[in-house]
Amino acid sequence: MANDWATFGADLHLEVRGTRLRAGLMDALREAVRSGRLEAGTRLPSSRQLAADLGMARNTVADAYAELVAEGWLTARQGSGTRVARRAAPRPPAPSFPELSASLEQGRSRSPRPSAPPAGTGRGRPAAPVHNLNSGTPDLASFPRADWLKAYRRALTDAPNEAFGYGDPRGRPELRAALAEYLARARGVHARPERIVVCAGFVHGLMLIGQVLRARGVRDVAVESYGLGLHDGLLRRAGLGTPVLAFDERGTRTEELAALDGCGAVLMTAAHQYPLGGALPPDRRAAVVDWARASGGFVLEDDYDGEFRYDRQPVGALQGLDPERVVYFGTASKSLAPGLRLAWMVLPKGLATEVAAAKGDVDWSSGAPDQLAFAEFLRSGAYDRHVRAMRLRYRRRRDQLVAAVAAHSPETRVSGIAAGLHAVLALPPGTEQATLRAAAWRGLAVQGVNRFRRPTVPPTLDGLVVGYATPPDSGWQGALQALCGVLP
Amino acid sequence: MANDWATFGADLHLEVRGTRLRAGLMDALREAVRSGRLEAGTRLPSSRQLAADLGMARNTVADAYAELVAEGWLTARQGSGTRVARRAAPRPPAPSFPELSASLEQGRSRSPRPSAPPAGTGRGRPAAPVHNLNSGTPDLASFPRADWLKAYRRALTDAPNEAFGYGDPRGRPELRAALAEYLARARGVHARPERIVVCAGFVHGLMLIGQVLRARGVRDVAVESYGLGLHDGLLRRAGLGTPVLAFDERGTRTEELAALDGCGAVLMTAAHQYPLGGALPPDRRAAVVDWARASGGFVLEDDYDGEFRYDRQPVGALQGLDPERVVYFGTASKSLAPGLRLAWMVLPKGLATEVAAAKGDVDWSSGAPDQLAFAEFLRSGAYDRHVRAMRLRYRRRRDQLVAAVAAHSPETRVSGIAAGLHAVLALPPGTEQATLRAAAWRGLAVQGVNRFRRPTVPPTLDGLVVGYATPPDSGWQGALQALCGVLP
Repeated sequence: MANDWATFGADLHLEVRGTRLRAGLMDALREAVRSGRLEAGTRLPSSRQLAADLGMARNTVADAYAELVAEGWLTARQGSGTRVARRAAPRPPAPSFPELSASLEQGRSRSPRPSAPPAGTGRGRPAAPVHNLNSGTPDLASFPRADWLKAYRRALTDAPNEAFGYGDPRGRPELRAALAEYLARARGVHARPERIVVCAGFVHGLMLIGQVLRARGVRDVAVESYGLGLHDGLLRRAGLGTPVLAFDERGTRTEELAALDGCGAVLMTAAHQYPLGGALPPDRRAAVVDWARASGGFVLEDDYDGEFRYDRQPVGALQGLDPERVVYFGTASKSLAPGLRLAWMVLPKGLATEVAAAKGDVDWSSGAPDQLAFAEFLRSGAYDRHVRAMRLRYRRRRDQLVAAVAAHSPETRVSGIAAGLHAVLALPPGTEQATLRAAAWRGLAVQGVNRFRRPTVPPTLDGLVVGYATPPDSGWQGALQALCGVLP
Repeated sequence: MANDWATFGADLHLEVRGTRLRAGLMDALREAVRSGRLEAGTRLPSSRQLAADLGMARNTVADAYAELVAEGWLTARQGSGTRVARRAAPRPPAPSFPELSASLEQGRSRSPRPSAPPAGTGRGRPAAPVHNLNSGTPDLASFPRADWLKAYRRALTDAPNEAFGYGDPRGRPELRAALAEYLARARGVHARPERIVVCAGFVHGLMLIGQVLRARGVRDVAVESYGLGLHDGLLRRAGLGTPVLAFDERGTRTEELAALDGCGAVLMTAAHQYPLGGALPPDRRAAVVDWARASGGFVLEDDYDGEFRYDRQPVGALQGLDPERVVYFGTASKSLAPGLRLAWMVLPKGLATEVAAAKGDVDWSSGAPDQLAFAEFLRSGAYDRHVRAMRLRYRRRRDQLVAAVAAHSPETRVSGIAAGLHAVLALPPGTEQATLRAAAWRGLAVQGVNRFRRPTVPPTLDGLVVGYATPPDSGWQGALQALCGVLP
């Protein structure tokens, strides 16, 4: 690892680590803000000047600035230059915390199981589904069986005897240590092992948080206009109200959080809205963190598919902006397989203790051997290799999807394609149900946007949520053809 | 498999399968009762006569009768002979159900995690625990790593791709099929795969049942006088009351259930009371099933250590007496390792659907690879081999415990030793706390009987619950010496 030292502003040392310059620079800037060495409001040098100072290409610096604006660390205004954002206020550095390093790879998240296609129309029976473009599941045929088995064998051989006992409700320490390292490196998450709780899927974690918030006296947890009904249903069963935040063409209107009286938390898919696919814009990322700070509330960040971003460096996790106000949720369900039932939470200090206690009251958790195998899979680099390989495959599918739609139905707009395992195809107003019926008739399982609309939100969008990761390679071209066949 | 046909009574055919005659005879008798061919109240031939008819030793028949009396299928009264019990009323045979076969091996159950020894006395600090005789954990050093890995490798290789997806909330079908076969064979449980729900430990299953019963309008679930506070706490968090059944020297007074108004279920450790160690006597087994039938209530049978019985054939599960009124809980936590987080419920018809739905609302479960590995472990015979080997080891330890206590403290009575992984050592009245302090001082972690007493039950017993399975072989003799050192 080459270490380059550079100076800018008033004697500010920026340590840029590693060989990936943009990521290294972003990391150094985040660290400078976090430690307080770069104060809120400070104007940064121009990208041209900093590039010259650091001996980097100007584009590298400009890209890093743009990413940090998108993440909410910096602000950029015409005529005012690039400045340190106010919400990225300094906090004392965590002593034992592994320093954030560079490569901002991508996360993961929880979405619905494949379901049967919509019921028939009464004019005969639709075909049994042959093609599956439901979203929420990765390509199960690509599960890395040989590499996983290798990790499992090593983990089982090396495991201490006590690993086979009841254990810590937070999960195996080996896995929490490996996750802390990975999440800091890949998602900019401020994750100490003692703040991590391993759980058996996102919904398990959400249930635990719901219980803890309710016990703290929280009345409501806000949700986005579109999302999984499973999630708000779970919160309501925990005794919480779920007021809905409005949505516009720029995403969820987080600026309206302050008007929700009695709301103690908000559930967000900030990096890649599920299912509509947008990244929350910088001002709204800022607004949600500002709201949490001002109100003492929490942001529940469902980072369900952070591992998969295709066209630029990923949007870092909100959690990095304020680890004491953001609960970060990650999962292996998209990056590896839902069948492993492995997910994790990174929690603010007080919540970590309470969630561990709530989990310990019941004490189930994922099996220790699988947790140890996953730790070994992360440590050995097998996870990074798998994610890279899958990112290439999914990106190719995404490109084929976009090309096929452009060829067959040029008027159909495809959105939400910068990241993740699904895209949204806009449909002419009022045609979603008919399109779903036509799809079912052709044996194509696919979901409509309105399946994810909260009941109180007026229907204003028509579209298909296309899970392009779901089919195995052998089924992909057929599924794509069936899809094109039902588009206008 | 040799099939022997025998006739007794009025043209009653008894098919005795296999080479293990006693078990085969018991099974044939159960089947005859279940199918209605032997009616309630029917007097059976004497053991001498039936032995002659079947060409068996008389003791074999007498033992089979005695076991079936203990299980509640038969009754025996001086002067009245052996008769079919009333509660073992016939019900229509299940068409696709694998026939109960013979070898009544033993089950498993859930008990507390090893905990720190009691706090010091104020007269200096006790030694850090060196010896662990807390109950509830098997010898973790004996986890069959090589055989488990072999099963895991085969399972992972053979798994269909869909196994890596979200899956059926009831658990993998391969595992449910393997469990149905095993439970019928080893525990006399009437278990169809579609009535089995795999869960991540007994407490997970108990939580699901608690939710479902509460949703049905059940107000109270009765518990035994002694048990794990974790369990009744869980039921209370589900909104249920937990009235306590009285206990006497013959065990839990199930005959008092009828007096508990509004009680919809009872949680029982019928085969091996936890932690006191007795088997529920036949009349009280009868009473609990009778109560469930008459009241429409359910028996929640926590069969936590059914695999381990040493001095005679196991007491079969209550569930076999009435699968529509008994919910059977089993677990791999005692027979293999708690770290696997694998347990299972066998449910009455209506409850099976509701529990699967409740589990599906949250949808976590044990990881599919571990479920498939366990299915392979069962199918291949590795589980039977492991249980047999562990039964020999634990029996040897139990014998050594009994001998050591007899040598060092002849007045100390040891009970609950016919089965399981723990024994109870009675202490002189009022000496339990002092003994626990002395144990802590010597670095011995062990639990007192009163740790398991429900708060409303008056303290009438003093004793130690000794988990003799817990230490590894290397620590066993030292733990035993430390224990003997604190006995009167």
